[in-house]
This record gives sequence, structure tokens and C-alpha cells, in this order.
Amino acid sequence: MPVDVVNKDLQHERSKCTFNQEEFTLWWVGGQDKLDEKRFTENYYVSQPEFHDTTPLHYASHQEIYEQTVRKATVIFTKVKKLLQEQEKYDAKNYVNFLDSLLGTGVIKEGSPLRLHFVMFIPAIVGQGSAEQQAKWLDKALNCEILGTYAQTELGHGTFLRGLETTATFDETTDEIILNSPTLTAYKWWPGALAQTVNHCIVMAQLYSNGKCHGVHAFMVQVRDEDTHMPLPGLEIGDIGHKMGFKGVNNGYLGFKKYRIPRANMLMRNAQLLRDGTYVKPVSSVLTYGTMVFVRVIIVSGMAHNLAKSATIAVRYSSVRRQSVINPDQPEVQIIDHITQQGKLLPQIAKAIALKLTADNLWQMYQETTSDLNSGKLDRLPELHAIACCLKVVSTSDAASGIEMCRLACGGHGYLSCANFMSFYTVATAASTYEGENTVLLLQTARYLIKMWNHALKGKQLMQTVQYLAEFAGKSTKRLPWSDSIPVIISAFQVITANRLNHANARIEQRKRKGFTPEEATNLTGLELIRVAELHGRGFVLQSAYEMIETACQTASPELTRVLRELCQLVVFDEALKVVGDLMRFTTMSERDLAKLQQKYEASLAAIRPNAVGIVDAFDYPDYVLGSALGAFDGNVYQRLLDDAMRSPLNQEPVNKTFELYLKPLMRAKL
Amino acid sequence: MPVDVVNKDLQHERSKCTFNQEEFTLWWVGGQDKLDEKRFTENYYVSQPEFHDTTPLHYASHQEIYEQTVRKATVIFTKVKKLLQEQEKYDAKNYVNFLDSLLGTGVIKEGSPLRLHFVMFIPAIVGQGSAEQQAKWLDKALNCEILGTYAQTELGHGTFLRGLETTATFDETTDEIILNSPTLTAYKWWPGALAQTVNHCIVMAQLYSNGKCHGVHAFMVQVRDEDTHMPLPGLEIGDIGHKMGFKGVNNGYLGFKKYRIPRANMLMRNAQLLRDGTYVKPVSSVLTYGTMVFVRVIIVSGMAHNLAKSATIAVRYSSVRRQSVINPDQPEVQIIDHITQQGKLLPQIAKAIALKLTADNLWQMYQETTSDLNSGKLDRLPELHAIACCLKVVSTSDAASGIEMCRLACGGHGYLSCANFMSFYTVATAASTYEGENTVLLLQTARYLIKMWNHALKGKQLMQTVQYLAEFAGKSTKRLPWSDSIPVIISAFQVITANRLNHANARIEQRKRKGFTPEEATNLTGLELIRVAELHGRGFVLQSAYEMIETACQTASPELTRVLRELCQLVVFDEALKVVGDLMRFTTMSERDLAKLQQKYEASLAAIRPNAVGIVDAFDYPDYVLGSALGAFDGNVYQRLLDDAMRSPLNQEPVNKTFELYLKPLMRAKL
Repeated sequence: MPVDVVNKDLQHERSKCTFNQEEFTLWWVGGQDKLDEKRFTENYYVSQPEFHDTTPLHYASHQEIYEQTVRKATVIFTKVKKLLQEQEKYDAKNYVNFLDSLLGTGVIKEGSPLRLHFVMFIPAIVGQGSAEQQAKWLDKALNCEILGTYAQTELGHGTFLRGLETTATFDETTDEIILNSPTLTAYKWWPGALAQTVNHCIVMAQLYSNGKCHGVHAFMVQVRDEDTHMPLPGLEIGDIGHKMGFKGVNNGYLGFKKYRIPRANMLMRNAQLLRDGTYVKPVSSVLTYGTMVFVRVIIVSGMAHNLAKSATIAVRYSSVRRQSVINPDQPEVQIIDHITQQGKLLPQIAKAIALKLTADNLWQMYQETTSDLNSGKLDRLPELHAIACCLKVVSTSDAASGIEMCRLACGGHGYLSCANFMSFYTVATAASTYEGENTVLLLQTARYLIKMWNHALKGKQLMQTVQYLAEFAGKSTKRLPWSDSIPVIISAFQVITANRLNHANARIEQRKRKGFTPEEATNLTGLELIRVAELHGRGFVLQSAYEMIETACQTASPELTRVLRELCQLVVFDEALKVVGDLMRFTTMSERDLAKLQQKYEASLAAIRPNAVGIVDAFDYPDYVLGSALGAFDGNVYQRLLDDAMRSPLNQEPVNKTFELYLKPLMRAKL
Repeated sequence: MPVDVVNKDLQHERSKCTFNQEEFTLWWVGGQDKLDEKRFTENYYVSQPEFHDTTPLHYASHQEIYEQTVRKATVIFTKVKKLLQEQEKYDAKNYVNFLDSLLGTGVIKEGSPLRLHFVMFIPAIVGQGSAEQQAKWLDKALNCEILGTYAQTELGHGTFLRGLETTATFDETTDEIILNSPTLTAYKWWPGALAQTVNHCIVMAQLYSNGKCHGVHAFMVQVRDEDTHMPLPGLEIGDIGHKMGFKGVNNGYLGFKKYRIPRANMLMRNAQLLRDGTYVKPVSSVLTYGTMVFVRVIIVSGMAHNLAKSATIAVRYSSVRRQSVINPDQPEVQIIDHITQQGKLLPQIAKAIALKLTADNLWQMYQETTSDLNSGKLDRLPELHAIACCLKVVSTSDAASGIEMCRLACGGHGYLSCANFMSFYTVATAASTYEGENTVLLLQTARYLIKMWNHALKGKQLMQTVQYLAEFAGKSTKRLPWSDSIPVIISAFQVITANRLNHANARIEQRKRKGFTPEEATNLTGLELIRVAELHGRGFVLQSAYEMIETACQTASPELTRVLRELCQLVVFDEALKVVGDLMRFTTMSERDLAKLQQKYEASLAAIRPNAVGIVDAFDYPDYVLGSALGAFDGNVYQRLLDDAMRSPLNQEPVNKTFELYLKPLMRAKL
């Protein structure tokens, strides 16, 4: 059956759209230049037959997935480089940007085993290698003459960097460094591409010289022979096995049996190890903070897109799928007309937008702070770090739960791999753990908030994102006069955060008075602290969404303005209804106010309902990026489900060999 | 490295256990006989080498997984039958029980493609076939001479049974029934084992005779040739493709091109179709209700075990894993000593127990109702149906989120397939959709609650599980005097449910007055209704846990009594803290009360912490049932992670072929 017409229900939804979609898209993408670039890249990728799989990789084995992703990654590397050279735009940054635009869920939805070469290996050479070292390795890396990755996490050690066990001991007699894994838990474990792909690796290890430990440093290590790709003697290297997602990334392990490298392979831009074993400390370690924050900005933005893609799929499917009647004498309705379905999906659209605007806001803060840094001002860095930590948590956890909500809202078909929700979910949930485990990050934000609270109590000046605490610290508690206007609800989040921070701080002090050490007291107050840090982040998300939407509305058309404000209301009301207990405690909200808030929330759903398809269309994700039988633009859901099924290897022959091998003997055995 | 010693931290945990574990296990399993049987089965399975995979199936392709599960399923069928015959215990029921004891996550964690033969196909013949039909098919089915499944769901139709499109039209001239799929959306889609495994299938289709539709009926359909296993002409049959879980179940599709079967293949125990096309209605359709409830009891119990297994893995791992220091001068602590980790895991233990006791309670109600039914009393059936619906929802959603919580609490290693959380999660989340989609079920419970509320307003007598509504209906609202005793908190859940039901009912009436039809008014009130139904279920879970634990404590030792009561407190406090907003609204809870509740919750965590490993050990899941590198009894986590990795096909050769094919050309190309 040919797929050439758009589903009628979807067409009808589109005809109802009240705003100019291209205007929305331009705002969402960030201007005409970016939109042109995005569409050029998308068209390029979709037009390259070699970039696509002949059979969907969910049917393949662990090994086949790896082999196919390596094939695609190398083809893409080569072709994209040529393309950029032809356009005279080739440099490392453009290259990475172009490659990144397809990662995650598009062409290589299993993840690319060559990505870390560009986003970790090369930046580490630049950031941590001396001029001499850069001369030696950078061009080779940029030309892909060597392929590398970055190994920090160990089998027994993740978050707590000081706990790393791998040792790098200087041997003055040979001017070498001996890398060793003293135990199994010291094995490097998790680095992407480490297993079978790379021949070089930057390894983090505890440096010892002259009988002293100088802490964790970075070392350039060749791990495989450049000609034969055989693992070098003294190393144990391989694949860590099958995972929920990122199945093509080739995460590996690496154990060292007193493996020797030249002293010159210690990356020495910052710290140095001299010929006689003298250790020279780095001047400042503040810059590594910046990189961590940068990665978290990227994560928040990535989560927004993951959620927006999932919402696109679920909203389109919910417009096509019909199930159950509302009025008994009428036909089955589009499932998006069940208010329970609206309550599942429409807030995900609004949340995705709020997270994207939060990422934009954080990006501005990051750039301001970086320019401060370059002029020697470090004072905004802890603030930026604290807000980036809790935003990474809120964005990853809300994206993960929102994606699952979208999947479940698609019923049984959401469970099929060709619906593609699992790609988005496994990416989102992985980000809850990597680059700082979420609970650990919330505790870091909380530590900053506690410190700032005590600064405020002493009347010290606070930084912008926590300035609101000063209004409450040491003041007598007064309930915030409730109103369901957006600015008041945002203030309510600040009131709640401040009050709960006050309580948590009091609990810590109480516990200290009982004889606990400050660290024990903080650990014992952990449950309250993580909640406070999360609320701080949620308040920031709502404020970012509100401010950036209001800014956009200054120049937007009246039609787009209306839609953006409706979306802002929805996400704010939705978040408010999740903290009713706190609103009751710290504002004057009454039963009647609550009923009104619920009604306004439902009114928001109803207001957005007619534009739901219009909005997700305006996110402008092409079908190949969504990669979903349920979410394609044409809405030919059922035909696409069958098409994917027809590509199952089990459907390529009428009778599987297990009939003769197992089933027939069973049926003939007259058990 | 040999795995022969138990991890020391885990040993130390065990030495702290304050209660007799065998006493706990006997209570948990339900007595000595059941425990003996369970251990016999487990030992039998673990001792059969043919039941195990040579390579973990997460490394295999879609097709290989199917082929391996068919192999295992047929071997197990044959061997278990022999075993039971030797023991002179062979009958269909014992057989199914024995087979079921290994399903889900143990020997065939990908699901068995032969399971539906026993749990759907054979029961459908028994329940819906006439005596003559049973004589014809039952023995063949029991002997596995034919293999079958059950097909109801269609590509475009699930929950709403009346919407099924497949037609079964009587042709009087040939005394045949013509099965037809008028559209693509009419294709049967999802039935397990339908794709490549079975040769028979019971098909649900709209019966037409004498120009009239008589609704959905069941038909016995042969789908493949018994000798060649070729699909029969007039059928389109195959695999629906790759899924999140149940990867060995071989879910299939089936389309009919005017496919003829004898009239005698309509299952005629209840309704009948005579030779001249006359349709004879069934006497009553009440019995099918019973089956649905039965399946839901099984689901609640299965969810409890899934969650308990996940908690076992995460608690053991958290006792072995050390990360981060609390006091700076001391070594890294067991991660279970971070209170945030306790807050994630210990409530899952308590919740698993509460759900298991809820299933036991529901099972008692089911048996009472069934015996009522047999003596012609039908009046408890709607009540049982309503409570089973919302308990299926609460158990599946809490198990799914609890399992993910356990997985995330294991950090990166939880993301590895060999941790095995994904097996439990994909089973739990699938159950949120099948056997009644969760939101649809909550709306069914809510419909019953609204009806009962209006009965109560009219002073009618209410059934046991909703009797509490009578205390509130039509009475002036008075806040419940708060106390943090368990019975008061359980009453608080009832107060909350009744008050919110009252509000929802008022909203429906309001909307009707505005001119909406009753059905529209109900749809528009959907968000409030599903919340009420969920709260009704949660109250029932807490009450079941409390009552059944108190009953157990009448005969338990003082040591076990203490532990069980601590667990009961934990789950009750945990649930209470999730509805603080409602407690503030409908009870007299003050700020000070709330602070005290939080402290009591934290005290519960501290009380259970020393026994955490003792309790999960006493759940008595053998290693092969947990199937997890992180959760084995010996706690040799890191060695087991490496062992699983070493079984990866990618680690069987030092250099993968992609080096010569793709990587070397890339590296030599000097891009």
C-alpha cells in the first residue's frame, strides 16, 4: 500500500492551527541562518544512501550493531569532511558541529563510536597538553591518523574522583611512567570507543613521584598497534558488554599490568613532572569547572529536544489514533480528545519549550561568566556551577519521565522499538547518571544554597540566581499572598525554596548541636537538601521560560504571542499543581484558590489542544530524526508499523528452522 | 579469579540481622509446603544445563533470541512433563504451575513463546468451547499436538472491544464462517506466539448472520499446516517486530482474506449459531469478569515480586559499592550509608511487601466472590472489579517507577544489561498497558466510586471496600484530627479520597448543568477522577499491608514482629509524605506535625537500615532468578561484571573486522 497521502485527522488538525508555523520555527531554532543551516544539514544526511541502515538495527545483534555504527561513522566522517572542504568551511569546530547535528537519534541513533574522539580526546589535548605535546598529537588527531578517547571512570570508582585507583608511578631510572591497575576495581570501565575502536586514550591516574602522591593527572597512552590494531602487551582491553542504550558506542574496559609510557606522555600544560621527579603544581584548576558547566548546558538543551521529539511523536499519534467513544451514539474519538491524554501530553510540549529556554538562559550566563573568567573574575563561577548542577538534574529527570509518559500514552504500540521512544529514553536516563550523578549534583547545589543562606543571614551580598534568598533569611515567616498570576507563582517557588532551605539549615544546626560532625549532619539532612536544590532549579526553569517568552512576545505576532503565553501558563500551572502541599504551607492559597488553579490548568489544556499538532510540527523535526513509525509527518501510522514489521528477519522466510528442530518433535511426541 | 568468597561488607551486613530469616521467608512464601516446593523447582531448573544459555541473550539478534527461546521452551516442556509424570503429579494445572514458576525473569527471561498456549489457548477452549468442541481440541492441546494462542487486539483497536473490525460472516450455503480483515487496522496485532510458533489461534471477531451483527465472539482458526508449518492460504501472518521487552514471545499479526472456517469452529459454550444462521444469545456474560479480575490479581502479585527482586539487587550492590566519604578523614562509605540512597531503596522493599500483601488480600476477596458467584450471588462482582482495576494500576506504576529508582541508584552499572533491571522494568511497564490500559482502568474504578458516592448520598448500603464513603457523603466537611499513627494515616487516605470524590462529583454535576452530556461531563472531569481512583487504591494497599502484618504479628516472634511493623510504618509514612497537600487540606495536620512525620520517616529508614540485607536475603530469590551481576548472593559484583563482559562476542577476537574494513582506511586517508 503506497504511503502518499496525509492522514485526514492530522490534516484537519493542521487546518486549525492559529499561528504562523514558520514564525514559531524561526523563534525555536534561533533565526533564519540557523534554520537554513539546520535544513541544509538535514537534507544532506537524508540524501546519502550510505548513511542509512538496510535493516533497522533493533533487529541486529550486539556485534552487528557495533559493526554497522563503525561503518556509518567512518563513511560520515569522510563524506562530511569532503563536503566542508568543498564549501571551504572545514575546521575542527565546524566539523564537530556538523557531525553533532546528526547525533543522538538521527542517522546514528545507537551513538557513534567516533564521537568522543572529537568531543573528549581532541579537547583534552588542547586543554591539557603543552605546546610541544599539541604539536606532536593534535594534527594527527584532527586528521584521524590516530583515534582516541578519554578514560576516567573505573570499575569501582565514578563520581568520587579522589578515589581513583589507577597509579602512574614515575621511574627515574628510565624516565618513564608506569601505569598500573592494582586491583580489578581499578580497571578503567565505561569510556566510549575504548573497547575495539581507538588506538589511543587519555588516561586519568594518580601520579606518584619521589614517594609522594600528587593526585589525579592525565596521560596519553597508546593502547593498540597502529598497523595491526592488536592490543599492546601489558594491557587488558575489551568491551564492557550490552547496555540499555548507546549500543553502538563501544564502551570499553582497560587494565594496566605495569605498563610503561614515556614521562613526556603526561599532559603537562598545567602541572608538570620534571626529569628528576620533581612535581610542579598547576597554577589554578578553576578552568576545568568551566568545561563541566559547558557540558551541562549541552545536556539541558539535548534533554529539551529529546522531550520535544517524543511529544511530537505522541501528539501526532494521538491525533490519528481513535479509541473509545465519549458520547455513546458517536464514533470513537481521537485519543487526544480524552482530557486524560491531554493531561499527559500537552504539559510535555510546554516543558520541552521551558527546558530549551532554560538552556538558552544558562548559555548566556555561561558566556558572561567565561568572559569574566578571561578577565580574571572568578566570583560567578560557584553560582553558575550550582545552578548548572540542579538544572542538569531537573532536565534529565523530567525528560526521562516525560518521554516515558509519551510512550505510555501511545499504548501497546509505544512498546514497539519502531516507535523509537526507547532511543530517547535511554539517552535521557543515561544523562541522569553520567557527568555527575543526579543526587550527587543536587547535594552540590544544596551545599551552595546552605552557604548562601548563611551569607544572607550575615547580611552579605548574594549573586543573582540566589538573591531572592536575602528577602527571607532571618526575617519572620510571612505567607506569600497567593494569586495565580505567573509572576506570583514564580515568586511562590522562591518562597518555598527559601522556607525549606531555612528548615534544612535548622536541621543541620540541630544535628551539629547533638554532636554530629558537620558532614554527618549534612548527610542526615540529605533528603531535605536534595528537595530544596530541585525546587531551586524548578523555580529557575519557570523564571527562564517566563522571561524569555515575554522577551519573544515583544516582537512576535499577536497570534504567536498568544500561543507562547498559553504554553508558559501551562508549564507554570502544571508545576504549581505538583507542589500544592508547599503552596498551602508557605502561601495564603485557599481551597477556593486551589480549585481555581485546577480550572485554569484545564483551561490551558483546552486552549492548547487545537494547536497541539501545529506546535509540534513547528518544532520542525524531520521524519528521519524522529525515526518513529508512530510520529511521521504523514500520520500513516499503521502502514508504517507493518512496514517495520516486514523488515524483521523472522518475516523473510515463511517457516523458521525451529519448526523442524524443536516444534515438530514436540508436537509429534504426544507428550 | 575464582568467585568463592562472599564480599566482606555483605558478610558484615548479614551478621547484623536481628531476626530469624527462615521465619521471614516462611511468612513471605506462605508456609513450609510452598517453600519446599519453591526450592525443589528452583533446584531442578538450575541443575538442568540445557535450560541455560551459552551466551547471554542480550548479545543475540532478534532472530537468535527467538530461536533460543523456542529451544529452551520446548526442552523445558518435555522435561518438566516427564518429571511430573515420574512423580505421578502430572495434570494440566500442576504443569502450568510448575512452568510458571520459572517464567518472567528466571530461565526464560525473554518470555516463552509457548506460555499463551497454556494460559490463554487451553483456558479459552475450556471456558468457551462446548462439550463436543472440548472433546475435539482439548486433548490435542494438552498433549501439544496442536499449539495455539489467542487473538483479540487489532492494529487499530485495543481497549475498546466493541471497536474490533475483524468480521466473521456466516455463509449459510456452505455452513461456513468467513473471517475477513476489511482494513489494515483490522489485522490482529500483538498476540504472543502468533508470528512463527503456533498453528492454531482463537480469534475474536464480530459475528454476522442473517444480516445482523451479534457482537464479538471467539473462533477456532487453524493458521499453519500441521505438517509443513506453512501459513495457510488466505492468511497473512508474521512477526510484529522488535520490542522493549518480551523479546522471545514472538508477538504476531494476522490478516484474513475472506478465510473460511466451518461453523462448528465458533466456540459455542455460551452463545450459539444454528445451522440456519439463527443466533442464540448467551445466558450471562458475568463470568468473563471473573477471569479479568483473576488476571489482575496475578499481575499485582507479579509486580510485588518484580519490585522485591530489583530491591534485592540494589540493596546488595549498595552494601558492596563504596563511594564518597562522609567524614573527610575516613574511607569511602558503603553507598547505602548515604541517607539519600536509603530514601531511594528502603521504601521499595516496604512497597514490595505491601503490594504482595495486597495481592493476597485481593486473592481472598476473589475467592469469596467466586464462591458467591457459584451460588448465584453476583453483588460483590462490581466492587471486586473496581478495586482490582485500581490496584492493577497502582502496582504496575509503582513497580515500574520503583524498579527504575533501584536501577538509577546503582549508577552507571545499573545501565548494563547484565544488571538485569531492564528485564524487570520492561515486564512492569508492559503491564501498565496490557490487560486494561492504566488510565482506562482508573476511569472504570472512578465510575464505580461516583456511583457509590451517589448511592451513599441516597443512604443506600455500600460494599466493604467503599463503606468508608458513607461516613462523608452529604455530611458537612470536618477535618480529620491528625495523628501520625498508622490507623489514622490510613483513615486520612479515606478522608482524602472521599473529599476529592465529592469535589469530582460536584464538578460533573456542574458541567451537566452547563449543558454537557453526562459522558462529556465525565470526560472533562477525567483528571480529577483518575486521581481519586488512584487514592482509593493506595488507601487499600496501606490497609491491606497494615491488617495482614498485624495478623502475622499475632503469631510471629518478637524479633520478626518488630521488623514487620517497621516496614509497615515505612510504607505508610512514605505514602503520607507524597500527599502532604491533601493532608493539609483534609486533616488538621500542622507544620509541626509535618516536621514530626518527616522525622518519623527518617527514623524508619534508620531502623530498617541494619536489616536491609537481611530482609532482601529473606525474600529468598536464588541468583539465577535475579540474573544480575550486581545482585548475586556473594556480592562479587566487579568480577561478575567482568565475567559478563568477557562473554561479549566482541571480546572473542582481539581485532574486529571493522578495523581493516573501515578504521584503517579512515586513518590512512589523511582526511
